[in-house]
Amino acid sequence: MATFSSMIYLLLILTTSVVLSAASLPVYFPGILQSSLKKSGKISKPKTPYETRYFPQILDHFTFTPKSYKIFPQKYLINSQYWRKGAPIFVYTGNEGDIDWFAANTGFLLDIAPKFHALLVFIEHRFYGESLPFGKKSYKSAKTLGYLNSQQALADFAVLIRSLKQNLSSEASPVVVFGGSYGGMLSAWFRLKYPHIAIGALASSAPILQFDSITPWSSFYDAVSQDFKDVSLNCYEMIKESWAELDAISADKEGLADLSRHFRACKQVTSIESARNWLWEAFIYTAMVNYPTKANFMKPLPAYPVKEMCKIIDESKLGETKLSSIFAAASLYYNYSKTEKCFKLEDETDDHGLHGWDWQACTEMVMPMIVSNESMFPPSSFSYEDYATDCSKKYGVKPRRHWITTEFGGTNIEQVLKRFGSNIIFSNGLQDPWSRGSVLKNISASIVALVAEEGAHHTDLRGATSSDPEWLIHQRNQEVEIIKRWISDYHLDMKQVK
Amino acid sequence: MATFSSMIYLLLILTTSVVLSAASLPVYFPGILQSSLKKSGKISKPKTPYETRYFPQILDHFTFTPKSYKIFPQKYLINSQYWRKGAPIFVYTGNEGDIDWFAANTGFLLDIAPKFHALLVFIEHRFYGESLPFGKKSYKSAKTLGYLNSQQALADFAVLIRSLKQNLSSEASPVVVFGGSYGGMLSAWFRLKYPHIAIGALASSAPILQFDSITPWSSFYDAVSQDFKDVSLNCYEMIKESWAELDAISADKEGLADLSRHFRACKQVTSIESARNWLWEAFIYTAMVNYPTKANFMKPLPAYPVKEMCKIIDESKLGETKLSSIFAAASLYYNYSKTEKCFKLEDETDDHGLHGWDWQACTEMVMPMIVSNESMFPPSSFSYEDYATDCSKKYGVKPRRHWITTEFGGTNIEQVLKRFGSNIIFSNGLQDPWSRGSVLKNISASIVALVAEEGAHHTDLRGATSSDPEWLIHQRNQEVEIIKRWISDYHLDMKQVK
Repeated sequence: MATFSSMIYLLLILTTSVVLSAASLPVYFPGILQSSLKKSGKISKPKTPYETRYFPQILDHFTFTPKSYKIFPQKYLINSQYWRKGAPIFVYTGNEGDIDWFAANTGFLLDIAPKFHALLVFIEHRFYGESLPFGKKSYKSAKTLGYLNSQQALADFAVLIRSLKQNLSSEASPVVVFGGSYGGMLSAWFRLKYPHIAIGALASSAPILQFDSITPWSSFYDAVSQDFKDVSLNCYEMIKESWAELDAISADKEGLADLSRHFRACKQVTSIESARNWLWEAFIYTAMVNYPTKANFMKPLPAYPVKEMCKIIDESKLGETKLSSIFAAASLYYNYSKTEKCFKLEDETDDHGLHGWDWQACTEMVMPMIVSNESMFPPSSFSYEDYATDCSKKYGVKPRRHWITTEFGGTNIEQVLKRFGSNIIFSNGLQDPWSRGSVLKNISASIVALVAEEGAHHTDLRGATSSDPEWLIHQRNQEVEIIKRWISDYHLDMKQVK
Repeated sequence: MATFSSMIYLLLILTTSVVLSAASLPVYFPGILQSSLKKSGKISKPKTPYETRYFPQILDHFTFTPKSYKIFPQKYLINSQYWRKGAPIFVYTGNEGDIDWFAANTGFLLDIAPKFHALLVFIEHRFYGESLPFGKKSYKSAKTLGYLNSQQALADFAVLIRSLKQNLSSEASPVVVFGGSYGGMLSAWFRLKYPHIAIGALASSAPILQFDSITPWSSFYDAVSQDFKDVSLNCYEMIKESWAELDAISADKEGLADLSRHFRACKQVTSIESARNWLWEAFIYTAMVNYPTKANFMKPLPAYPVKEMCKIIDESKLGETKLSSIFAAASLYYNYSKTEKCFKLEDETDDHGLHGWDWQACTEMVMPMIVSNESMFPPSSFSYEDYATDCSKKYGVKPRRHWITTEFGGTNIEQVLKRFGSNIIFSNGLQDPWSRGSVLKNISASIVALVAEEGAHHTDLRGATSSDPEWLIHQRNQEVEIIKRWISDYHLDMKQVK
């Protein structure tokens, strides 16, 4: 079994995440990353009940050089069909991709809008989707990319929301922010940094503790592995042992040709790593979207897809190689709908404008991860020095390793927020490997954790379906009740103090 | 009486503020501003018990362009004579000037350090004093000055404090921030934005509500006027009526020569405005430092200097012009020590590196002020358009009028902070005209206002003297008790949650 000496890059997307590992340096795999996004995009961009608008946003909120005054069009979506003036405004704090895509996958807001007569606003994160400050040149170099970061994004939200309320002549409308994954991190941070703009935040599957050494570095992969182990020890062991078989395939043309045939690749794969990442991705995503109902999130999958995957592995015939079983399991993820004639293992297109996360990971979003021996993945260590060197090579700038925890905290979060702040829901599903870097315990009376043992990556933000289990209905109801309380407290306070 | 059609520039310094008015556009008077600072500087820079250090600070915390990584030496002062590892760290969040000067005028911290075994740290604000990111070119243009603003300053404090604690191997030390005037605004904002770094803030005379329309625009000058009116209605009326006499002096050479002689100017003044501002400044400063004890703050002054000024006016002889009386009163401010042989009405030197406030006022710190008819000063309106035009002319960039309230809040502060945040003391003295733009009412159990009717501009932060009145001793004791509680709560929470 190969030992991965290097590092793992990590992308939080919408309701999912791609984890990239590498056997050697340099180890950027935007191709793999983007191919997975493309695949998921095909199925998750239905027509939305939102109007598209553009806000003239300022490039740099935190400097006043002549350059910083540059204006770019920031996209946002709006739905006012349930709204009446003075009623709440629900804002989704967009993450690293096209905002339409996030809106389409956050049906919870549409579901609850009528109850609150709420205005719905989905704001696209700068540098993603159409919200490109320098147009096609936005990704040219660190000179332009430098303006892509979370703190600027939060300020964008603040400025846009304030302007919108003024234009609507509805300054008294309470604003509640919502977000999932990175968007959830942003919504929690937004409530903490801009309490005068948002009265509360629902931060779903928001791993704000995945920085520095707050969360054990092995937790993510341990959690993925645990999902499989919980279903079947044999399944976990088979996956764990399969990597050696993969490595045993010599990297010569013949070996790769065999592998490509076996994996039904549309084009012959150029490295063992491609196949490894393709498999790896299937297991990680499936753990993340291990929903209790049939769902079409990243891809169409049956209910409890981890169980289904393990069923394939556990039922594999005697004499089959482990790799064959593992491939069959991964195929569930990539082809449950039986529409794929072959698999694009090295596809590099990016339909959702998501490739900015690489930049964010190389500057502010340093989330160290390792793969422990207990994991079902090949062990891997983390060297910050190598990480920084690679980022420098790629972008010409170094990560600011401790910046996120300096700017947003995270260390001793329970002590810090016990007597500070209010009105944040951290919702998590324990099936989701990201949950281990999230807030899982109540911190105070109003900074609370809603933890669903059977939940996956922000299940709660998805639109309700007729087959939702009781615990999910209950979790969403709790959220609605808490948000109602925030709003009634707000109105009470506005009356009393004035 | 001339009507001032334009605007008033305002500088918050240390324990004082210079207000500049103008009869016509453009109306920048850095000269006047700086001369006043120079005069004050002479007397307020004793040797301090602090060691000077420099921290390698990053230029731009909020972008990741190659330029933003530039490092500059940020000055800070440190006193560890009372400290023991693990004990609290008291940080003064430096305002717009040399940090030595602020340290010398904030004796309170030295006074209380032994009680807490506290480490004292005074951090210089970027672009002031020696902390110049571009050396002598720091003030060259908006391209360099663009990095001078409050949000970057707060991030500087965060990064420096975190690094310092690590270097001291004292990460568990609770940090309390202190500041007066603009420094007080910074300390309050620091607690709100960085609760994970500071457990509490003592924000003395911090007019965080002096933005937008939160505080009536006339409040500052009304408050100055009220100080004089409270002492003597005649005094207030004499001052109010004197401006017409000043305006009546024709601005020809002879009139100005007469005026210069009468005002004992070291050099003939070049405009009526110079004389007006010189008088104006005397009244404003005296109101701000209307201490109940003899003090040497901006300048040496007797106890209750407003009363003493009015005494001079009230006792002026029949037949004297109002202007003569007013000049005599102003002389109390400029020459109580009887050391000045003549007055430098148009001095333009800047001993304390304070001229950056003009830039801050022209970008983020837009504090609209007018002079109402009820004031003892000539009425003046505020035109944001003119203000913005002037700023553009001077610096090539426009103010961001609503940025401070977008970034830091302020509107409906009582409602916003009633259920959010904790551990801030807003201390104020009602003699201080800045108090009207500050927080004067308790917001919650731990965001409290300490209001001293007889207090002036952050009296509480000055070192104790044997003649301090009871209320001042009491106010400081209250502050110490509250800070003690923050620290014991902190230790309690650290024990309980772990």
